[in-house]
Amino acid sequence: MRQYETFELTFKGEEPAGSFADIDLKAVFTNDGESITTYGFYAGNDTYKIRFFPKKTGLYTWTVSGLFSAAGEEMCDKADEGVHGMVHAKDLHFEYEDGTVYYPIGTTIYAMMHQDKELVETTMDTLSKAPFNKIRLCVFPKHYDFNHNEPDLYAFEKTDGKWDVHKPCIEFWDVFEERMARLCKMGIQVDLIIFHPYDRWGFAGLSKEDSLTYLDYLLRRFSAIPNIWWSLANEYDFVGNYNKQDWIDFGKYIKERDPYGHCLSNHNGFEYWDFSLDEITHCCIQDSNVNEVPDLQRKYNKPVVFDECRYEGNIHHGWGNISAKEMVRRFWVAYTLGGYCTHGETYYSDDEVLWWSRGGVLKGESPERIAFLKSILDELSGPLYYVNEGLGRYTREMIMDMKKNGIPEEYKRDFFSNGLVQLSDERVQPYILNIRPCFAHVGDEAYLRYFDRDCCSKTDIDLPEDRKYKIEILDTWEMTRTVYSESASGKVSLELPGKEGMAVFACAVD
Amino acid sequence: MRQYETFELTFKGEEPAGSFADIDLKAVFTNDGESITTYGFYAGNDTYKIRFFPKKTGLYTWTVSGLFSAAGEEMCDKADEGVHGMVHAKDLHFEYEDGTVYYPIGTTIYAMMHQDKELVETTMDTLSKAPFNKIRLCVFPKHYDFNHNEPDLYAFEKTDGKWDVHKPCIEFWDVFEERMARLCKMGIQVDLIIFHPYDRWGFAGLSKEDSLTYLDYLLRRFSAIPNIWWSLANEYDFVGNYNKQDWIDFGKYIKERDPYGHCLSNHNGFEYWDFSLDEITHCCIQDSNVNEVPDLQRKYNKPVVFDECRYEGNIHHGWGNISAKEMVRRFWVAYTLGGYCTHGETYYSDDEVLWWSRGGVLKGESPERIAFLKSILDELSGPLYYVNEGLGRYTREMIMDMKKNGIPEEYKRDFFSNGLVQLSDERVQPYILNIRPCFAHVGDEAYLRYFDRDCCSKTDIDLPEDRKYKIEILDTWEMTRTVYSESASGKVSLELPGKEGMAVFACAVD
Repeated sequence: MRQYETFELTFKGEEPAGSFADIDLKAVFTNDGESITTYGFYAGNDTYKIRFFPKKTGLYTWTVSGLFSAAGEEMCDKADEGVHGMVHAKDLHFEYEDGTVYYPIGTTIYAMMHQDKELVETTMDTLSKAPFNKIRLCVFPKHYDFNHNEPDLYAFEKTDGKWDVHKPCIEFWDVFEERMARLCKMGIQVDLIIFHPYDRWGFAGLSKEDSLTYLDYLLRRFSAIPNIWWSLANEYDFVGNYNKQDWIDFGKYIKERDPYGHCLSNHNGFEYWDFSLDEITHCCIQDSNVNEVPDLQRKYNKPVVFDECRYEGNIHHGWGNISAKEMVRRFWVAYTLGGYCTHGETYYSDDEVLWWSRGGVLKGESPERIAFLKSILDELSGPLYYVNEGLGRYTREMIMDMKKNGIPEEYKRDFFSNGLVQLSDERVQPYILNIRPCFAHVGDEAYLRYFDRDCCSKTDIDLPEDRKYKIEILDTWEMTRTVYSESASGKVSLELPGKEGMAVFACAVD
Repeated sequence: MRQYETFELTFKGEEPAGSFADIDLKAVFTNDGESITTYGFYAGNDTYKIRFFPKKTGLYTWTVSGLFSAAGEEMCDKADEGVHGMVHAKDLHFEYEDGTVYYPIGTTIYAMMHQDKELVETTMDTLSKAPFNKIRLCVFPKHYDFNHNEPDLYAFEKTDGKWDVHKPCIEFWDVFEERMARLCKMGIQVDLIIFHPYDRWGFAGLSKEDSLTYLDYLLRRFSAIPNIWWSLANEYDFVGNYNKQDWIDFGKYIKERDPYGHCLSNHNGFEYWDFSLDEITHCCIQDSNVNEVPDLQRKYNKPVVFDECRYEGNIHHGWGNISAKEMVRRFWVAYTLGGYCTHGETYYSDDEVLWWSRGGVLKGESPERIAFLKSILDELSGPLYYVNEGLGRYTREMIMDMKKNGIPEEYKRDFFSNGLVQLSDERVQPYILNIRPCFAHVGDEAYLRYFDRDCCSKTDIDLPEDRKYKIEILDTWEMTRTVYSESASGKVSLELPGKEGMAVFACAVD
């Protein structure tokens, strides 16, 4: 047993007579007085497995009960170098179990797991060279434009012509796991989409009871896999099969059954999910207005990931034809507001292999630029927090409150406070989104300001007086870094080239 | 006397002993039973003038009373070829008195009238080659960044060290008029800013009574000038001197005293003026969200002009550093939503002559592209109306109403209606602005769709089945027109180059 690596107990026994999913098998792992219960699953081929994910080092004792009775102990060794454990939400950001910062740089390949082997290999190869460390992908296959291929395997077998959630297709899950393990080795988190609406097979029409059985098997198999995030749905509100309470029930069921607290959220079509729910670890957003990050952070006090901000591509759907520049822009906006963004690509090709859903090769110009952003993030000593000053202070909630209750004393002399309260209700949010500066910091270690579409040729940056900073001018599209000063302090006047997509990066050198 | 040309009666008499502005002199002009009263003004050099703008042809009789008594008659001949009269708002658009369509293509040179002669000549020369047919400019000089020059002349003389509104500076008004007349010959409307906040001289601090005296003189002199629009203010809400009622009073005063009904509006800093007021002819907007056009049209049923959408330039102020591409984009969005946009330019130069305020030469890349847009508009048989179909149907008001009162029967089967009503109140407006297609038509004569930042490589256009259309693909940045079909009808599938800034123009050929 090794810290941060899935530990597995295997038992041989006859195939279950009834449900493969709902079986009576569990284990309790105890270390230093702390006990964790984990449930076993039927893994096919007369084999039962119980998985456990050890977070601590030291001696674990375990007892198995139910279909099998057994007990034992394992010494858990310290994690291998470079193995950091699961990712968890922490404050407005994410980190691995060992405290290493994790900056999600996601992409989307919804039906990656439902493609033929050759295409999956191509996708894996592409991912090995791409900047992405999180993939949004589905358990169930996808039926949609450019997504008409029939998968080799499905999550369940059929009984009497109907999907039988009690008979998981063992090969499907084995292949799925093997691919997740490969992604894990590449440092990629799997943001697993449990339900989605784009279906011709009937997976989007499971009864509530069947859905919970499916969840049960999923949790028994996958909970102890380190690189899993639970995404209740892609576009939960487009899945006609479930109501709001159903989604709440699914979330709570997962929270109860997942002893490790994997990241958990729910992705919207129209209205955002209720991220204030206790079991929701972060805000998973579909929207184009990535500059809403600070509003959402302040509302929910959880990390904000714009997991779908439209796709770089050229298809006829409006959500699938933003330019590479626009995708890069949305990334920079999100990160310099202290949030995160997820990539996707929808360039049409005659073979109908579009990255966003089926994988293959990346054709766009944004990944390279996203890698450039990542290279900046990798130099930081911690996650970026929004600079909550000047125009950056204002959120819609605050303005609406001032409109109702008056301007607080400390804002009374502020030109913008006095103006913003004059705006009609419907203009407050669009106005705030337009004036909000993209400016983030890591304590007084680093400052990163993105100028978005502003083409200023001059600007100022206010740095602390008591430290020295290296200032670089970044061209986020050309991916250049130009040193402006090796040792600056206080208010610094900067010259910029007067074009879109520039950024200023100041990093302490003392 | 000639139709659509200012007619002037001149009287010689001693300079007024008291106020130059508030004098007792008026004329009544009568033609075919219709009488128009117009007030005279002291024009300096022992001369009094009464101006009249004849809209009709035929015999006018006139009588003058007050300081002078006189009567006479004039035969008013038909307007010269190419002289169309004043511009008036009509429905959601503008037209000249003779019914010729006027598409405002504005620019901004706030302090144009307060520059030295040489600079004004340069500006006039630039304008003669530029696409603009409307200029926003101020009566009073401007004090602001890059605007520190002292004008040669001011609107008033001083008495006891204070501006004396009863002693207009005759030379100032003569020069102003002469320049307006030159602009008129170039076909340029003067959107005259009557008050504004950027002041070091005291013009922004006139008493209400003095302000009305100023308005009185202004109206006596300028009402009969054809190319005047009244803009109560630039950023009315930044002028601390007046309250809302004052602005209403100014508007009503102008409406009463201007017998010709020149276009009249008021320009905001933060919140829009109340365009529902009877005297307001059109919506004059400062905001970046030019895609609000349809909301404003439906709310006020008046033309919508985004008179300030930020400026193409590179200065440090956020409002003064959008790219040429973004300026061109805002124009195309506004016009293909059935509205209008106004240009401005703020490229820094060491001589501090920035177009937006002082004029000079244009340095940017947008005017040429705006001229390209104008060339398309000039081919239309009438103004563009928004295509109020599909996603184009939705406004915030409509969604808010559906949230409250339920989805009307005819929308019940619509995917978007059902989704939009789920949005939280604050997300409705930003959401609508994002999905709204930029698609306008001139009856069934012409259709113009702008794809904005969408990079689709394929699209459809639904044309009437019973007419034939020439379809062109426009590249709004490269300024190219590519004929796609000479004779298309019904639903047409189009291929586009998959880049930002493309448009499709379909024009009936039968």
